[in-house]
Amino acid sequence: MTQSVQLLGISNAIVDVLAHVDENFLKRIGAPRGSMTLIDEARAHEIYDMMGPATEMSGGSVANTIAGFAILGGSASYIGRVQNDQLGEIFVHDMRSLGVDVRTAPVADGAPTARSHILIDPDGQRTMQTYLGACTELGVADVTEETVGTPKVILLEGYVWDIPEGPALAAEAIRIAKQNGSAVALSLSDSYCVKRHRDVFAKVVRDDVNMVFADDDEVMALYEVSKFEDVLSAIDGSDKLFVMTRSEKGSVIVEGATKIIQEANAIEQLIDTTGAGDAYAAAFLYGWTSGKDLDECARLGTHVATSVIQQLGARIETNVLESFA
Amino acid sequence: MTQSVQLLGISNAIVDVLAHVDENFLKRIGAPRGSMTLIDEARAHEIYDMMGPATEMSGGSVANTIAGFAILGGSASYIGRVQNDQLGEIFVHDMRSLGVDVRTAPVADGAPTARSHILIDPDGQRTMQTYLGACTELGVADVTEETVGTPKVILLEGYVWDIPEGPALAAEAIRIAKQNGSAVALSLSDSYCVKRHRDVFAKVVRDDVNMVFADDDEVMALYEVSKFEDVLSAIDGSDKLFVMTRSEKGSVIVEGATKIIQEANAIEQLIDTTGAGDAYAAAFLYGWTSGKDLDECARLGTHVATSVIQQLGARIETNVLESFA
Repeated sequence: MTQSVQLLGISNAIVDVLAHVDENFLKRIGAPRGSMTLIDEARAHEIYDMMGPATEMSGGSVANTIAGFAILGGSASYIGRVQNDQLGEIFVHDMRSLGVDVRTAPVADGAPTARSHILIDPDGQRTMQTYLGACTELGVADVTEETVGTPKVILLEGYVWDIPEGPALAAEAIRIAKQNGSAVALSLSDSYCVKRHRDVFAKVVRDDVNMVFADDDEVMALYEVSKFEDVLSAIDGSDKLFVMTRSEKGSVIVEGATKIIQEANAIEQLIDTTGAGDAYAAAFLYGWTSGKDLDECARLGTHVATSVIQQLGARIETNVLESFA
Repeated sequence: MTQSVQLLGISNAIVDVLAHVDENFLKRIGAPRGSMTLIDEARAHEIYDMMGPATEMSGGSVANTIAGFAILGGSASYIGRVQNDQLGEIFVHDMRSLGVDVRTAPVADGAPTARSHILIDPDGQRTMQTYLGACTELGVADVTEETVGTPKVILLEGYVWDIPEGPALAAEAIRIAKQNGSAVALSLSDSYCVKRHRDVFAKVVRDDVNMVFADDDEVMALYEVSKFEDVLSAIDGSDKLFVMTRSEKGSVIVEGATKIIQEANAIEQLIDTTGAGDAYAAAFLYGWTSGKDLDECARLGTHVATSVIQQLGARIETNVLESFA
């Protein structure tokens, strides 16, 4: 009998194309620093042609969290769509090699595998230009009682609502979760994504999810407030678990009357913030599904995120917990 | 009018697939530590399935030298074969984005683009399992007076002799070089490669090339001696330029009566030796084509190789010369 799955991710399956750029590059392509812009295939080729030599690795926000969760020792499964092209092979290989049970097979038809051009500027800030390709063809048919199973937690990302069948497949995942007693977690992806789907996300957070992962910009966008303190007022009285990361300001965890303020750890050198929030979520959920209290979950998240921002790329090192005190 | 090309590389065009492994992994696949083994497509999939999550980037020994030469500011061109698949696109993109004039267009038919699984063990040593794919279909037809042009130096790699039309296309490149007054350089690739083609390489070094790039194992294999000192006796009296790298023992440059012993630089932390020799050759050739004396070429090579071994992957950083004293 296989180990029961603790965490299922449903998200955009994306190969990251990472390159260092200077600040003029962002101006030249008209990209706001720190943003994620959806682009079409033609624009993807344009951006790629303008970029310097790059490094490719599997990526995608919640997919990174799932990979990180598996690296930390958790049992994970994944639903996301890639074509059976070389980038799709890279994506599925990287997930499976970590022991993630990828529930969706690469498909022969449709658009090519998604890629996100991650432009890292000299300060380590990332700006993303993402061609969704095959991702956008993930459908309700991919989310069934068989593919979802009975994980402890189902983690959805906000970006899922950007794809045509996204709202319907998310609703189906939530229905199956409620039926089977799985908790539902939502990662808010980015503040632009929240603004695109604010009313829907507000309703989903109120009615459907058990926990929300967000950074301060995202959660401020969700509650349409301009100060983080006003978020705390807005969620006062909610029984949901809010896990909010704030870069150098640390993180804040709120669940009902419980509020944990977790400071950031000191770092030696900031290399690249790619995947810090995803890594935090991976470690937090690893703690949570292992029955740790919220305080230890927050410290785990902080420890792993601190490691990830001091390296290039979003991937968690296999030995990261050896240094967790 | 475009800048005249200083360096043309002719070599196997390969995408590197880098992953960290433990020492048991090498035993499990039966690979001698530090070796390069040629594998077929089926074995490539087997090895890839056994590997952990990987990072992909353009690679290949002499291709890395060409890329590095361009990063340092040199004008470079390149002949090598990829399919027009996604890995081929990655390879050509990375070269073109550095300003390298890729003279061979990706092809629609034949084998898929080559990939080298680079297994990095805890001590930073690399072991390679390489599927040559499209590389093996590089042919004499790709090496013409038009594609070769009139560079200052034509750099060939030993691995070219592993492919069916390799000896013939190398001969044609050498013929064109002699006709046009280009210097010919040979990189010996690895000691197993030298053993596969020892007699041919000995003849090529004696009759056809102007300079040889090799590490101590390779040059000892070429002269069938077991001590580096015996290499120096073997090449005594030759008028060729020998550039020999020796890891922590530094490098030795011999040209006729001139002998330069260049010590290695101190390093803080060895991360990955991938591409150290290629980087050395890039910087040495950058100095040489810029008219620097051999002593400065050796110091340039050492400086850049020292930088590369302290990072993951073979790629030279764009600002590496800022710290050259």
